[in-house]
Amino acid sequence: MDDATETRDQAWERRTELPLFYASLLFLAGYTVSVVAYRAHPLWRDIGLGVVVLTWACFIVDYLARLILSRMRPLRFVRVHWLDTLIVMLPLLRPLRMVKVHDAIEARHNRPRRNLYARVMSYAGLSAGLLGFAGALGVHHFERQAPGASILTLGDAVWWVCETLTTVGYGDMAPVTPGGRIIAGFLMAGGLALLGAVTGSFSSWMLQAFRREDEETPGK
Amino acid sequence: MDDATETRDQAWERRTELPLFYASLLFLAGYTVSVVAYRAHPLWRDIGLGVVVLTWACFIVDYLARLILSRMRPLRFVRVHWLDTLIVMLPLLRPLRMVKVHDAIEARHNRPRRNLYARVMSYAGLSAGLLGFAGALGVHHFERQAPGASILTLGDAVWWVCETLTTVGYGDMAPVTPGGRIIAGFLMAGGLALLGAVTGSFSSWMLQAFRREDEETPGK
Amino acid sequence: MDDATETRDQAWERRTELPLFYASLLFLAGYTVSVVAYRAHPLWRDIGLGVVVLTWACFIVDYLARLILSRMRPLRFVRVHWLDTLIVMLPLLRPLRMVKVHDAIEARHNRPRRNLYARVMSYAGLSAGLLGFAGALGVHHFERQAPGASILTLGDAVWWVCETLTTVGYGDMAPVTPGGRIIAGFLMAGGLALLGAVTGSFSSWMLQAFRREDEETPGK
Amino acid sequence: MDDATETRDQAWERRTELPLFYASLLFLAGYTVSVVAYRAHPLWRDIGLGVVVLTWACFIVDYLARLILSRMRPLRFVRVHWLDTLIVMLPLLRPLRMVKVHDAIEARHNRPRRNLYARVMSYAGLSAGLLGFAGALGVHHFERQAPGASILTLGDAVWWVCETLTTVGYGDMAPVTPGGRIIAGFLMAGGLALLGAVTGSFSSWMLQAFRREDEETPGK
Repeated sequence: MDDATETRDQAWERRTELPLFYASLLFLAGYTVSVVAYRAHPLWRDIGLGVVVLTWACFIVDYLARLILSRMRPLRFVRVHWLDTLIVMLPLLRPLRMVKVHDAIEARHNRPRRNLYARVMSYAGLSAGLLGFAGALGVHHFERQAPGASILTLGDAVWWVCETLTTVGYGDMAPVTPGGRIIAGFLMAGGLALLGAVTGSFSSWMLQAFRREDEETPGK
Repeated sequence: MDDATETRDQAWERRTELPLFYASLLFLAGYTVSVVAYRAHPLWRDIGLGVVVLTWACFIVDYLARLILSRMRPLRFVRVHWLDTLIVMLPLLRPLRMVKVHDAIEARHNRPRRNLYARVMSYAGLSAGLLGFAGALGVHHFERQAPGASILTLGDAVWWVCETLTTVGYGDMAPVTPGGRIIAGFLMAGGLALLGAVTGSFSSWMLQAFRREDEETPGK
Repeated sequence: MDDATETRDQAWERRTELPLFYASLLFLAGYTVSVVAYRAHPLWRDIGLGVVVLTWACFIVDYLARLILSRMRPLRFVRVHWLDTLIVMLPLLRPLRMVKVHDAIEARHNRPRRNLYARVMSYAGLSAGLLGFAGALGVHHFERQAPGASILTLGDAVWWVCETLTTVGYGDMAPVTPGGRIIAGFLMAGGLALLGAVTGSFSSWMLQAFRREDEETPGK
Repeated sequence: MDDATETRDQAWERRTELPLFYASLLFLAGYTVSVVAYRAHPLWRDIGLGVVVLTWACFIVDYLARLILSRMRPLRFVRVHWLDTLIVMLPLLRPLRMVKVHDAIEARHNRPRRNLYARVMSYAGLSAGLLGFAGALGVHHFERQAPGASILTLGDAVWWVCETLTTVGYGDMAPVTPGGRIIAGFLMAGGLALLGAVTGSFSSWMLQAFRREDEETPGK
């Protein structure tokens, strides 16, 4: 990336990437507090909601700034950047942008790039983890007061997400509300693809490691 | 595809592909109505069944037309086009022909072809989705009045299909009738292979994306 | 395969392959009858057991004949042909030799070889199917009279195998006896690897089909 | 591996690898006895604990010896050898070092290297098996006295690990304590990746076998 050829929206993106990443962690924390604290002192919930609203506002400002800097017509911008449009509406999906954050962090530390498989594994694994946590919050939100629900606490929801993303599915817990099931459906689809990428890369990485070892000891 | 060298059955296939696709959506809608409306006013069921019969007749006419245009002996045609023969007997399997529809739509819009992995993902994902919906209808049809059934509504059946195709299998719902279990068996076999193709392609696509990025920034 | 260079044990193997395959189907049928008919007229069970004993004797004779024709020392033969040794002790595992039968049938019909992926899919799929059926028989054998068992009939056992090999695992049925669980463990390990080969080959085959289509229509 | 160029820490590693492997089997046996024998005569538990403590001491001595021989600063050594650091704190994870033991055994027997896929399969399979057994012990340790637990004996825990690593997850057993669930989470993540490597290698190996066969019989 040469600064001379960098357009204004690329420069904006490069500079805002890390602050927005911390904002999305804040968003997640605020949402967690507001979901978990529904029976605690209302102050906590208010703090949580305040953080959620503030960080969400940042995301919208960033989206609009990029829309203006790109000089595209709005409809075209929405179509080209559909993933960003979806994310600005559902900030819980922000983990899916992890890959750029990842690169931004590595670029700042000026580290050499790691092995291809290791990078895919770390990116897909982290995204799946964050997406899973966001899904646990969402499902907990819907299920916590449903009659006959088996997912009662946030801890239960996290355990349920572990079961689900690994496709083990013991069935000691399962969503019973339509809202929880819809979130579960998207979580399965997205998370499975990401975890499949982790498993596949691990397998390829292992084969590569064994193959390299063969080449290094040809006399054997 | 050059029109000059196109045989008569190819021309037939090219022209009927899209109308037949819409007919198969109609078939699915009609079947849905006839399955869901079993306790509603009989008029609804009759409309549903009427649509089913009419669209099925279209499929049979198309099959016979292609049989005649191909100038093969009937037995040979059945053997060569065994998938089409199966589909004309069980129109719920039509989603498996999605790939040709897909190409027909793209050709009409004259769009450039997308990335190989993206196409496999969208084709296999759509087929799995439609096949899953058809399976949900079929299982609901068998289970809705069985004693001790856990799949009671169409919504339950759709949730059960999500669980099954992703191999999570909580076990909060499972078919109990022989008919439902046979459909479930075929759904598992077919759907898993299709979803495996989606996951595998996603994994390859991700590796490709990371690799390309490496090549574009060689100085890093 | 040139007859001139064929050794005596290869000739034996080539000639006995198909008869032994039919014998193994007979073995499976006999075992099925003897397992299912435990509450029926004892005559059935006796017929089933008779067929089992007779076909097993054939397998042992074949094993000994190959041991002699190979002119190896017995211990070395056992070590080299460990899979055959295992199969002669547990004839239910015979499906794993399907690949040679498959080739024998194709060679006899003098058909051209099919696509690589299609062959892997059909071999692994058939082996998984037969292994699964053998596993269902074995588990039914152990579970049919266990207190608290959920697998009560052979139909239940077959449904349970479907759930297990696809890793869905609803949990409406699960083995409770140590014997049944040991069989289940081996079935999971073997069947999953075989079904993974089916899914992986299907995925590769699909990618190949889409890629070839691209090459055939370069002008698009 | 040329002895002349071997550094002192490599020589140490080569010589201690096998004794330490046997020590880790002893560790596992001791831990098994101490976990299983909690209701038996206290002497058994004391023997088990004694073996655990002794072998653990060996691991620590080995770690310190390598730290000194490497002539690195301690913090750097910890960072470079993070997996070894983790293993010396949690010796149940020792199976993950299997790959070096594997090579050490093969080198001693002076056998030619086997097929790449076969080696990945055997390494990943063995690691998954040992890791699974260690996980079963750990989960049993947490669950054996929890109220409402479904995993009651070590046999149950082993069966539960089989279900979990293959992602079947019937749900007849599932951990209920936070400790058991945390172990289960790590077991799922690690074991699935390892078993995915087994399945993937098996699939590749099968394709390779079929492809080679094609090349050997070109006249067919």
